[in-house]
Amino acid sequence: MDYRIEKDTMGEVQVPADKFWGAQTQRSRENFKIGGQQMPLEIIQAFAYLKKAAALTNQELGVLPEEKATAIAQVCDEILEGKLDDQFPLVVWQTGSGTQSNMNVNEVVANRAHVLRGGQLTDQEKFLNPNDDVNKSQSSNDTFPTAMHIAAYKMVVEITIPKVEQLRDTLKKKAADFKDVVKIGRTHFMDATPLTLGHEFSGYASQLDHGLKALHNTLDHLAELALGGTAVGTGLNTPKGYAKRVAEVIAELTGLPFRTAENKFESLAAHDALVETHGALKQLAVSLMKIANDIRMLASGPRSGIGEILIPENEPGSSIMPGKVNPTQVEAMTMVCAQVMGNDVAVSVGGMNGHFELNVFKPVMIYNVLVSARLLGDACASFDEHCASGIEPNKPFIKRHLENSLMLVTALNTKIGYYKAAEIAKKAHKEGSTLKEAAIALGYVTAEQFDEWVRPEKMVGSLD
Amino acid sequence: MDYRIEKDTMGEVQVPADKFWGAQTQRSRENFKIGGQQMPLEIIQAFAYLKKAAALTNQELGVLPEEKATAIAQVCDEILEGKLDDQFPLVVWQTGSGTQSNMNVNEVVANRAHVLRGGQLTDQEKFLNPNDDVNKSQSSNDTFPTAMHIAAYKMVVEITIPKVEQLRDTLKKKAADFKDVVKIGRTHFMDATPLTLGHEFSGYASQLDHGLKALHNTLDHLAELALGGTAVGTGLNTPKGYAKRVAEVIAELTGLPFRTAENKFESLAAHDALVETHGALKQLAVSLMKIANDIRMLASGPRSGIGEILIPENEPGSSIMPGKVNPTQVEAMTMVCAQVMGNDVAVSVGGMNGHFELNVFKPVMIYNVLVSARLLGDACASFDEHCASGIEPNKPFIKRHLENSLMLVTALNTKIGYYKAAEIAKKAHKEGSTLKEAAIALGYVTAEQFDEWVRPEKMVGSLD
Amino acid sequence: MDYRIEKDTMGEVQVPADKFWGAQTQRSRENFKIGGQQMPLEIIQAFAYLKKAAALTNQELGVLPEEKATAIAQVCDEILEGKLDDQFPLVVWQTGSGTQSNMNVNEVVANRAHVLRGGQLTDQEKFLNPNDDVNKSQSSNDTFPTAMHIAAYKMVVEITIPKVEQLRDTLKKKAADFKDVVKIGRTHFMDATPLTLGHEFSGYASQLDHGLKALHNTLDHLAELALGGTAVGTGLNTPKGYAKRVAEVIAELTGLPFRTAENKFESLAAHDALVETHGALKQLAVSLMKIANDIRMLASGPRSGIGEILIPENEPGSSIMPGKVNPTQVEAMTMVCAQVMGNDVAVSVGGMNGHFELNVFKPVMIYNVLVSARLLGDACASFDEHCASGIEPNKPFIKRHLENSLMLVTALNTKIGYYKAAEIAKKAHKEGSTLKEAAIALGYVTAEQFDEWVRPEKMVGSLD
Amino acid sequence: MDYRIEKDTMGEVQVPADKFWGAQTQRSRENFKIGGQQMPLEIIQAFAYLKKAAALTNQELGVLPEEKATAIAQVCDEILEGKLDDQFPLVVWQTGSGTQSNMNVNEVVANRAHVLRGGQLTDQEKFLNPNDDVNKSQSSNDTFPTAMHIAAYKMVVEITIPKVEQLRDTLKKKAADFKDVVKIGRTHFMDATPLTLGHEFSGYASQLDHGLKALHNTLDHLAELALGGTAVGTGLNTPKGYAKRVAEVIAELTGLPFRTAENKFESLAAHDALVETHGALKQLAVSLMKIANDIRMLASGPRSGIGEILIPENEPGSSIMPGKVNPTQVEAMTMVCAQVMGNDVAVSVGGMNGHFELNVFKPVMIYNVLVSARLLGDACASFDEHCASGIEPNKPFIKRHLENSLMLVTALNTKIGYYKAAEIAKKAHKEGSTLKEAAIALGYVTAEQFDEWVRPEKMVGSLD
Repeated sequence: MDYRIEKDTMGEVQVPADKFWGAQTQRSRENFKIGGQQMPLEIIQAFAYLKKAAALTNQELGVLPEEKATAIAQVCDEILEGKLDDQFPLVVWQTGSGTQSNMNVNEVVANRAHVLRGGQLTDQEKFLNPNDDVNKSQSSNDTFPTAMHIAAYKMVVEITIPKVEQLRDTLKKKAADFKDVVKIGRTHFMDATPLTLGHEFSGYASQLDHGLKALHNTLDHLAELALGGTAVGTGLNTPKGYAKRVAEVIAELTGLPFRTAENKFESLAAHDALVETHGALKQLAVSLMKIANDIRMLASGPRSGIGEILIPENEPGSSIMPGKVNPTQVEAMTMVCAQVMGNDVAVSVGGMNGHFELNVFKPVMIYNVLVSARLLGDACASFDEHCASGIEPNKPFIKRHLENSLMLVTALNTKIGYYKAAEIAKKAHKEGSTLKEAAIALGYVTAEQFDEWVRPEKMVGSLD
Repeated sequence: MDYRIEKDTMGEVQVPADKFWGAQTQRSRENFKIGGQQMPLEIIQAFAYLKKAAALTNQELGVLPEEKATAIAQVCDEILEGKLDDQFPLVVWQTGSGTQSNMNVNEVVANRAHVLRGGQLTDQEKFLNPNDDVNKSQSSNDTFPTAMHIAAYKMVVEITIPKVEQLRDTLKKKAADFKDVVKIGRTHFMDATPLTLGHEFSGYASQLDHGLKALHNTLDHLAELALGGTAVGTGLNTPKGYAKRVAEVIAELTGLPFRTAENKFESLAAHDALVETHGALKQLAVSLMKIANDIRMLASGPRSGIGEILIPENEPGSSIMPGKVNPTQVEAMTMVCAQVMGNDVAVSVGGMNGHFELNVFKPVMIYNVLVSARLLGDACASFDEHCASGIEPNKPFIKRHLENSLMLVTALNTKIGYYKAAEIAKKAHKEGSTLKEAAIALGYVTAEQFDEWVRPEKMVGSLD
Repeated sequence: MDYRIEKDTMGEVQVPADKFWGAQTQRSRENFKIGGQQMPLEIIQAFAYLKKAAALTNQELGVLPEEKATAIAQVCDEILEGKLDDQFPLVVWQTGSGTQSNMNVNEVVANRAHVLRGGQLTDQEKFLNPNDDVNKSQSSNDTFPTAMHIAAYKMVVEITIPKVEQLRDTLKKKAADFKDVVKIGRTHFMDATPLTLGHEFSGYASQLDHGLKALHNTLDHLAELALGGTAVGTGLNTPKGYAKRVAEVIAELTGLPFRTAENKFESLAAHDALVETHGALKQLAVSLMKIANDIRMLASGPRSGIGEILIPENEPGSSIMPGKVNPTQVEAMTMVCAQVMGNDVAVSVGGMNGHFELNVFKPVMIYNVLVSARLLGDACASFDEHCASGIEPNKPFIKRHLENSLMLVTALNTKIGYYKAAEIAKKAHKEGSTLKEAAIALGYVTAEQFDEWVRPEKMVGSLD
Repeated sequence: MDYRIEKDTMGEVQVPADKFWGAQTQRSRENFKIGGQQMPLEIIQAFAYLKKAAALTNQELGVLPEEKATAIAQVCDEILEGKLDDQFPLVVWQTGSGTQSNMNVNEVVANRAHVLRGGQLTDQEKFLNPNDDVNKSQSSNDTFPTAMHIAAYKMVVEITIPKVEQLRDTLKKKAADFKDVVKIGRTHFMDATPLTLGHEFSGYASQLDHGLKALHNTLDHLAELALGGTAVGTGLNTPKGYAKRVAEVIAELTGLPFRTAENKFESLAAHDALVETHGALKQLAVSLMKIANDIRMLASGPRSGIGEILIPENEPGSSIMPGKVNPTQVEAMTMVCAQVMGNDVAVSVGGMNGHFELNVFKPVMIYNVLVSARLLGDACASFDEHCASGIEPNKPFIKRHLENSLMLVTALNTKIGYYKAAEIAKKAHKEGSTLKEAAIALGYVTAEQFDEWVRPEKMVGSLD
C-alpha cells in the first residue's frame, strides 16, 4: 500500500496515500486493535451536521472566514450524502471521549476540502487546519456528546418509533378484528375465565402505547446539546452567543427540535439522557418479550399445544423434522429483547462512571443506544410484516378450549357464592364431567339456571 | 401456642388462636418458608385503601349492604393506623399473583370486623365472608396490581422525590455559594482548563433535576389502576360503573390522582408501569453514583489526594489507622446505587415474564420498586444531612492545583494557534517549568501578553 | 429510654443503657438512617469466629495475655450461640468497609466481657479495649472481608448446596420413575419428535449437577482469608506468622478448609471471590428458571393447556375463580430467580468499583451474596417438598398428544428421505388426517411399513 | 443481479446466481432484515469442523458413502481456510435455533461440492443433498449448540486466555520491578498506611490469576458437545456409537478436549455452559475495571492529580487542550468492561428462557459470548502493549505523598495505643504540622523514638 506522511503534535505518521484521514486517526487505528465494532456511521453523520453548523455559526459570529465555512460545509454535505463512508475506520473501543473520532472528522474535512479546492494530500500547507478551523469553537468534549444526542434522537424518531408504531397499529387492528372471538383466559398459565382474543391483542397494543409514550418522554432530555461547552463546560474559546446559535442551526439542518443544554457541565460529565432513553428502550423490550412470548405460546402446536392462533409459515422450520413450522419471528424478536436488556446494563455502567468534568464512556454508551434503537425498530417491522399482520384465530381450538373450561363456574359466584361454586368445579375436575353435570348433581342450580347464567359470551363484556 | 381451626375450600387448618388471619394465610406460611423478606407494609396499607374503596363503591352501587361496607372500612382504617401490622406475616416469595396476601387482608378484615362487632374468632358463622364480602367485585389479579401502583406512587411522591429534592436543593445552594471559587478542571481524570467549584455543583444539581423530571414522567402510568378488571381484565362480577368509580374513591382517600386504567388486560398481564418507574429510579442511581464519586475524589486526602473540598467528619474512620476520616456517606450512597442497578434487572426480568392474562412476578417487582425508592430517598437525605450540606472548599489545595496547571495554555489557542500552544505545554511539562517561562523561552508571547491572556478567572465565564 | 455516656476519639455519645455496644455503633445508627436491611447475622457470627481466632492466635504468638484472649473467646461463643443477637443494630448501608460493624462487634465483645467479669457498663476503665485488645492484629479492612468469606462459604455449603442437591435428587428420581413414559417432544414450543418424560427430568437434573459443580468450583477462592493483611494488605502491626496461623484456627473452629489468602492486597481491594460465587448462584438461577418454567407449562390446564404432568394442590388458587389450583411453588421459585439475576448485577457493580487498597462496597456485596444463596436454597427445598416430589405424569394427556403428533414422520427420514417425509406431514396437517393416512395416500409407504417404522417407543432410545 | 431458482419444501426462491447458498438461506435473508450483526465467522468455522466430523463418522459407521464424505470434508476445509467467507450472509437475529445458519452451511457445502466436482449450480440433481447428506445424523438442534461450544472454547483458549495472561505477566513483572518503591496506601480513597507500588501490582496480577482460574474452570462444561442428540436429544436417526465417536473426531480435528455431552437433553434445551463461561468473562471484566481505574487514577495529573505513575503517551490527548495526554487505553478497557457487564445479562436472559426440549436464544447467546471473549482478550493485549508495559513510577510524587502522610502514625499503635496515636494525627492535621512535631509536642514520644518507630520502609514488610 502507498503511504504519505502526516504530522501531529507528537510527530510523523504514515497514512494510506488515498485516504483523507490524518495522523491522529492513523494513530488510533494502530493503538486500538480491539474487536471490530466500528464507530457507527450515524455518529459520523451527526458530526457532519454539527461541524457544518459550527462552521456556519463561527462565520456568522465573525470568527471564521466565509470561504472556510463554505469549504467545511461542502465536505459535511458529502459526508451526509454517504460519499465518504470509507473514511471513518475507527472502532468504538478508543478514547472514551471520542476524541479520535472527532479528529477523524476534522482531518477528513480539512483534507477533503483541500482536494476539492484542487490541492494535493501531500501538500505541506492546507487550506483548512483540522484543529484551528474545523474544530473551531469546539472540543471533543462537547462535540462528541452533541453527536451522540443528534444520532440517538434521529434513530429513535426515524427508526424506532415509526416501526414500533407500525407493529402497534397492527396489534390494534387485530384487537378490532378479533373483538368477538370469545376464548378461554389463562392466569398462572392455568385455565381461567373467558375473554376475547381481541382483548388480548388490545393489551399488547396498550403496552406498546405506553412504551412509546415513555420513549417520547425521553426526547426532551436528548434534545439538549452540549455544543458550546468546549473543554470543560465553560465555553472557553467560543464567541459570544455561540452555544445558543449553533444549536438553532443544528435544529434547522436536521429539522429536529434541538436546543442548547441548560447546563453544559452536566452535558459533558454525565450522559443521563442516554441512560434515560435506553431505559425506555428497555421498557419496550420488556413489553415486546411478553407480547412475543404470548404469541409463541398461543401459536403452539400444531396438534399438541395451545394452538389458538395461526401464524404465517415463512420458511421450513426444521433440518430434521419435515413439515415443521416455527415461530421464528418471535424468536428473533425475543433475542433482540434479551440483547436490549443487556445493553441497558452496559449503558448504565458507562453512565455511572463519569469523573469530574468528563464522562469517558461516551462511545460505548452511544453504541449501545444506537444498536438497541435500531434492533427494536427493525425487529418490530420484521415481526409485523412476517408474523403479526398474518395472525388468524384458530377457531376449532379456541372453541374446544372454551367449552371444556371449568373456570366458567366463576359466573356462579354472584348467584350461589364462591364456596359452592368451588365445590362444583372440584367435582367436575375430579370426575371428568362437565360443569353443568356437576352443578345439577350437587343440586345448587337447575339446568335452566345453568344455561342462563353460564354463558361465556356474557362473561367477557362487563367493562364495555 | 394456642390454635383454632380455620377452613377454606381445601379443608381445615390450625391458626394461632390470637391472630386474625385465616386458613389461606396459614397455608402460605407453611408452604413458603423462603428467605425472610416480608411483604412490605406499604402493600398492606395500599390494600387497606383499596378494600375500603371497594366496599364503599360496592355499597354505593347497591351490591353490598351499608353495614358490611362500614365494617370493612373500619378495619381498613385500623390497618392504615398501623394497629394491625403484626397480622400480615407472609413473605414476598409466595404465589406470583399475590393472591395469598390479598386473602391475608380479606381474612384479617373479616375476622377483625367480627371481633369488633363482639364476635369470637372461633364462631362458625361470621358477619363478613372474606371472599364474598371483603373481596367483592375484586380478584387478586386486579387488587394486587392496584396495591402495587398505590404503594409505589405513594413511596415515590412521599419519600423518593422530596428527599432527592432536598439533596438537589443543597447542591444548588452549594453551586451558588461556590460560584467564584475558580479551580482546575479535570477531563480523562487529567488536569484540564479551569472552571468554578460552583460549576461542578451546578452540574450535579442539573443531573438530579433531570432525574426528578424523568421520575415525574413515570407517575402518569403508575396512576392507572387495574381495579375493576377482576380475574382476567373483563370485569366479570363487577357492577356497572364500578371500575371508574372505585378509582375515584381511591383518589379521594389517598389524595393522589389515581384513575382507572384504560386497558385492564395490560394492567393484569404486564407491569410495565413498574418497569418504567424503576427505570427512572435507576437513572437517579446512575446520576448519584457519579455525583457521590466526584465528591469522594474531590475530598480525597487529607494530604496526598486531590483534596479540593472538605466534608464533615461524622465518625472515627478506621479501627487501626488513628485520625482517619472517611467519606462514609458517599460509600453508603454508592452502595445503594449498586443495589438499585441490580434491582432494575430483577424488575425487568419479572416484567418480561408475564404469560397470557397474568404476570406472576408481582411481589418481586413491587418489592424491588419499594426497596429502591426508599433506599434512594433515604440515602439522599442522609447524604445531604451528614455530607453535602457541610461541604466546604479547601482553598489552599484549590489554589495550588490551579496555579500549577499546564492546561491554562488553552487560553493561548485563539492567540497563537493550537500547535504552538501545545509546544509550550510540552516544554513546561518536560522541564518542570511554569507555562509562562516556557512560553517566553519559545518566543511565542511576551511576559505582558502571557499575563493578560492567561488568566484562569477569565477562562471560566464564557457561558455567562 | 435510659442512656449512658460512651466515648470514642471524636467525643461523647449517648448509648442505650442496657446495650453492650459503644460510641461508634451508636454514631452509625444515627448517621445512617437508610432503609431497613440489617447487617446479616451470618456476618456477625462470622465475626465471632474470627475475633475468637484472632484472640487465640494473638495469645499463642505472645501479644495478648491469656486472660484477655479467654474473655474475648467467651463472648464470641455467646454470639455464636445467638445470645447477643439484639446487640448488632446496624444496617447494610453504612461505611463501605464495614468498619462500623467491626467496631460494633469490638464494642460488644469488650463491654460484654467486662460485665461477665462483674463490671458495670458505666465503668470508666474496662478490662478489654475494643481497638487495642479485641481488634488486635486486625483492621476493619481485613476482618470484614474475612467475615464475608466465612459467612458466604458457610451459607453456600450449609444452605445452598444441600437444598439444591435435595431438589436435584428428586429430579433424578423422577427421571428414573418416568423413564418409560413416552411423550411428545417440543422444540420452538412446537410439536417435535418424541422422548420420555424421564428424559426431560434427566435434563433438569443434569443442569443442576452442572450448576452445583460450578458453585463448588468457586469455593476455593472463597476459602482464602484476608485476615493478617490489616489496613492495606501489608500486615502492619501483626506478629510474625499471624496470618497463616489465624486462618488455621478459623478452619479448626468452623470445620471448613479456610486458608490465608496468597495475596492480601487483592483480598482487601477486590472481592472477585464474591463475584465468582454469585456468578455461580446466578447460573443456578438461570437453570432453575428454565426448569420451573417447563414444569409450569407441562402442568398447565387442567383442561385447555398442555397438561402432561400433575402437580400437588397446596392451597386454593384464586380469590375469584373457584376450584383453581396454581403452580405457586413455580412462581415463588421464578421470582427468586429474577431476584438473583438482579443481585448479580449489584454484586458486580460493587465489585468493579474498588479503589486502590480497598473496595468499599463490602456490605452490599456480601448482603446480596447471602440473600441469593439463602433464597436459592430455600426456594429449592420448598419447590422440592411442595411441588417436585409430588409430580406425576398425566397419562391421558400424554397419550393423546403423542398419538396426534405429526412429527413422528421424522422416523421416515432415513427410509424415504426428508423431502417426501415433509410432504406427508404437510398433507396430514392440511387435511387434518393422520400421518398414516397421508403416507399411504401419497403412496410412499404401505400400511405395514408405516406401522413398523413409525413407533414412538422406538424413536426415543437411540442414545441408550 | 443474476439469479437462479432454488427450491425447498416450501417452493421456489430466487438466489444470486454466483452464490453457493440455497433456498433456505435466501428466505432467511429476506425474512430477517434486522440490525447488521452477522452470524460470527467463528460459528461458521465451527460448523465446518462438525460437518466434516459428522461426514467422516457417518462414513466410518457405514451410513454415508466415502465419496460423499470426502466431498463434504473438502468443502469444510475450504471454509476453514477462509475461502468461502462471503457465503454466509445471515444475521444473528434469525430463528433462535440457528436452523437457518445450519442450513446455510448445508446448502453451501452441497452446492460447492457439486461445483468442485464439475457440476453447475443450476443442475436439477446434485451430488449431495443438504438435508439427507450434509445434515445426516444431525439436526440444527444439536449442530448449532455444538458449533457454539466449539467456537466459544476456541475463542477462549486462543484469544482470551493468552491475551489476559500476557497482561497478567506484565503486571507480575511490574510487581517485581516496583517491589522496593514504598508509597502511600489509600483506603476509602483517603491516605492510609504505606505499601509498595509492587504490592499494588501484585494485587492486580492476583486478580487476573484468579479470573483465569475461574475461566479455566468453565472449560469442562464447554467441552461437552450436543452432537448426536439430533432433534430433541434422543439421538433419533443416528447410527449406533455416533455421538461418542463424532465428538472424538471433532477433538482430533480441533486439537481440543471435546467429548460427547453426558446428557443431550440439557445440551439442547439449556446453554448453561455459555452462561457459566460468560460468568467468568464478566468476573474478569469486574477485575479489569478495578485495575484499569486504579491505573487511571494513579496516573492522574500531570500536576494536580495523584500522579504516582507515568503511562506512555500514545497520541495527542485533546482537540482543544494542547499537550494533554490521556489514559486512553484505560478508557478503551473500561468501556469493554461495561460492555461485557451488559452482555452478561443478555446471555443470562437468553439462557433462562429455554422451553421444553430447546432453547431458542442460541444465536444471541453465542454472539455475546464471542464478542465478550474477543473484546476482553483484545483489550488486554492493547492495554498491555500500549499502556501497562510502559508504566513507570513517578518517584518525586511518590516521595512527596509518602512523606506528607499522617497515617504513618499507625506505626505507633503498638507502642502508645490507638487513642494517643489518633490524638497525634488529629493535632498534626489541624495544625498543618508534621506528625513528628505533633507527637513530640504532645509528649507521647521522643524525637529518637519517633524516628526509630515511624519508618515507612519498615511498615510494608510484615507479610514477607
